Amino acid sequence: MGPTTITNATRPARFITVEGIEGAGKTSCLDYLAKLLRNQAIEAVLTREPGGTSLGEAVRALLLDHRFRGMAGDAETLLVFAARAQHLAEVIRPALAAGQWVVCDRFTDATYAYQGGGRALGATRVGLLEHWAQSELRPDRTLYLDVPVTVGLGRIASRGNLDRFESERQAFFERVRCVYLERCRAEPQRMRRIEADGSREAVHTQIAAALADLLNDGVETR
Amino acid sequence: MGPTTITNATRPARFITVEGIEGAGKTSCLDYLAKLLRNQAIEAVLTREPGGTSLGEAVRALLLDHRFRGMAGDAETLLVFAARAQHLAEVIRPALAAGQWVVCDRFTDATYAYQGGGRALGATRVGLLEHWAQSELRPDRTLYLDVPVTVGLGRIASRGNLDRFESERQAFFERVRCVYLERCRAEPQRMRRIEADGSREAVHTQIAAALADLLNDGVETR
Ligand SMILES: Nc1ncnc2c1ncn2[C@@H]1O[C@H](COP(=O)(O)OP(=O)(O)OP(=O)(O)O)[C@@H](O)[C@H]1O
Ligand SMILES: Nc1ncnc2c1ncn2[C@@H]1O[C@H](COP(=O)(O)OP(=O)(O)OP(=O)(O)O)[C@@H](O)[C@H]1O
Ligand SMILES: [Mg+2]
Ligand SMILES: [Mg+2]
Repeated sequence: MGPTTITNATRPARFITVEGIEGAGKTSCLDYLAKLLRNQAIEAVLTREPGGTSLGEAVRALLLDHRFRGMAGDAETLLVFAARAQHLAEVIRPALAAGQWVVCDRFTDATYAYQGGGRALGATRVGLLEHWAQSELRPDRTLYLDVPVTVGLGRIASRGNLDRFESERQAFFERVRCVYLERCRAEPQRMRRIEADGSREAVHTQIAAALADLLNDGVETR
Repeated sequence: MGPTTITNATRPARFITVEGIEGAGKTSCLDYLAKLLRNQAIEAVLTREPGGTSLGEAVRALLLDHRFRGMAGDAETLLVFAARAQHLAEVIRPALAAGQWVVCDRFTDATYAYQGGGRALGATRVGLLEHWAQSELRPDRTLYLDVPVTVGLGRIASRGNLDRFESERQAFFERVRCVYLERCRAEPQRMRRIEADGSREAVHTQIAAALADLLNDGVETR
């Protein structure tokens, strides 16, 4: 998936990320965000990680490939940041610099959760690479779609071919979820926990509320 | 290319790397080193970077692919270290732990030279990743095969399909060579400059001399 652009910005460009375990509803949330922004005539780039560029998508294919089930946690983390570095250089930084919002399906919180927690690398080592690759760039707002692990895995169970991450056991995803929840508690202003095991309507309401301040910001000064 | 093992070790396991620009004679040097070690009944793993594992070779293919000519320097450097992290976990550290020598065609000096110098990332940022991925592990000895850029490029000119690095201009390789030479001056005990534009015999003589202390080390205690 390459990035997709939608129309016309009037507010300060924002970097929004969407996080959650498998099946939490991230991709569905992106569809809803696209509508929400289009309704407000906000020009936005919708993209995803790992991926978002042709190099990033090639790296994503390596990350998800069962052939590499012996992948070392360090190698996995460096691959994730390699895809991210290209995404930042080619898509995210240019879009923000041009005044476009960027909405990304997963970003560095996922690396803290999956590699830092799931693979037990720890937050310190992830943080070193975050600073190396991003300097001070962080999302302005992160929507963390929280579902119990069994609910998320249940939603994707019908997909058939599960990738290298989707094939992990429940204990892995419990560690991932645990880091996501910790990060919501540590940065409540940026990272908003959305209860995502309810109905789609209930999820949408929470998403709109979690972005209301950013969507209204700058509207008066038009 | 996966790693190749040769027979029977009796000395402390050493980690030897071979460096130089395109066409300097690294791969030919590895063939000579294999003989030298075999003659002394030293069990060794011969390997290369980027590569040396199935994941590493897949990452190498991305690094060399002309499709990714827009690859950001940061992404390139992280990919190189991703391949290296897998190589360390899967091949280099286990071999050294088992008492085998490891001889590697390119290692982190190449990252300082190509990404740090050629791509102008600088030594500090390469050094941060070196520490992240390797902790304190460094080669025991590095053979830097020095040739003028025109000599190296002349030797590979007949190859036909040049990869993404081989297609760089002369100024790029001059920056690469410059960093290699600086590193030889900064760490003369570890990193030995071999004049590699002479005859094969002259190169072999220098290589044997540059390893003599390590090859004799421990021989008395057999
Ligand atoms: N609130 C909801 N209630 C029930 N089902 C939902 C809800 N939101 C999404 N789904 C469904 O759950 C499945 C997973 O949703 P989605 O693909 O958006 O999740 P995801 O977080 O992007 O998953 P992945 O991590 O695998 O990309 C889809 O079939 C989707 O239609
Ligand atoms: N001392 C030498 N004199 C002349 N030619 C040499 C010498 N050493 C190697 N060559 C030839 O130069 C070419 C390049 O050598 P080699 O492949 O060993 O270099 P390399 O450093 O591994 O190159 P690359 O970086 O492209 O892998 C080969 O054709 C090889 O036979
Ligand atoms: Mg999805
Ligand atoms: Mg070679």
